[in-house]
Amino acid sequence: MLPKLYEDQDCSLARTLEIIGERWTMLVVRDAFYGVRRFGDFHTHLGIPKAVLADRLRLLTQHGLLAREADSEHVKRFVYRLTDKGAELWPAVHALRVWGEQHAPSPGGARRIFRHVRCGGQLDARGDCRRCRKTVRAFDVVAEPGPGLTDRPTADPVTVALRQPHRLCHRLDTTPAAGQVDAADTVHAG
Amino acid sequence: MLPKLYEDQDCSLARTLEIIGERWTMLVVRDAFYGVRRFGDFHTHLGIPKAVLADRLRLLTQHGLLAREADSEHVKRFVYRLTDKGAELWPAVHALRVWGEQHAPSPGGARRIFRHVRCGGQLDARGDCRRCRKTVRAFDVVAEPGPGLTDRPTADPVTVALRQPHRLCHRLDTTPAAGQVDAADTVHAG
Repeated sequence: MLPKLYEDQDCSLARTLEIIGERWTMLVVRDAFYGVRRFGDFHTHLGIPKAVLADRLRLLTQHGLLAREADSEHVKRFVYRLTDKGAELWPAVHALRVWGEQHAPSPGGARRIFRHVRCGGQLDARGDCRRCRKTVRAFDVVAEPGPGLTDRPTADPVTVALRQPHRLCHRLDTTPAAGQVDAADTVHAG
Repeated sequence: MLPKLYEDQDCSLARTLEIIGERWTMLVVRDAFYGVRRFGDFHTHLGIPKAVLADRLRLLTQHGLLAREADSEHVKRFVYRLTDKGAELWPAVHALRVWGEQHAPSPGGARRIFRHVRCGGQLDARGDCRRCRKTVRAFDVVAEPGPGLTDRPTADPVTVALRQPHRLCHRLDTTPAAGQVDAADTVHAG
């Protein structure tokens, strides 16, 4: 178990923050929504020390937000998949993102646009589809590059893969096409 | 300006977390929603070192989520009032709280219940009023004690004041009635 930071703060917000309030944890969760599953992909995309990443993945797994499973493509390796419990953080992640779009915007506009996979409508601030008016679960959201997503010459495999529209919570294919990635050691993210 | 933690993470979620992602900041924001305005009240309610609290209040003021104003009741003192920009974090705070209620619940049920001030309807998971179906802004929410709020014999003035229903963002009266508070040095919170 993680140390209780907010021991005397017995409220549901504090209990949520006990799990996801550590530095970097929410960005690990964001990447899990993008379909990042391998330790190495989280690592190059986030550019954080491996020990910090390992700690955050362990914490999220312990609390059941991520499931640690054998990697079907690599013997003895594991992947971290967002569970339903983890995916239910989507309304909070979306609300935090919307606040950022409004109050700390990218110069060029939104870097990502989120659409409802069934009808293609863009999500509004509340996470509803502007077209069909339905509330959209994370699994039914497609993230695609927005006008603010600048094209960087060098990028890690996750950044490269996210240049295409991608359905949230579905595994992101980070196997680079030959010549597509010129330097995986330079870390950028989106 | 605060040091950029998520320098390479140029997305609106990361930009939001640059402002409110530090440990304790969200609980300072929660207390500001409850109408806590004085340094001393934040301090006894949260039970954190004064230097940490001062840093978080400065950061939130710098970014315009709190406004620092002269305290009309105490010469040379200041109060910290949630601005519209700060209050627009309500959907995110509510979503994080709802996740906690669902996935890390209090044994006795919700400690706080949130109602629409205009019709008395309880808020649903999305922050809409269950009765009139309107989306409710923070200013129109009343927080009241829920079944999980245990009665503690000793408590700080904020905890005591929050035993009564209170309209969010409106100043909380923390002046204790004589004999109502027996030990302000014991910190509990809700």
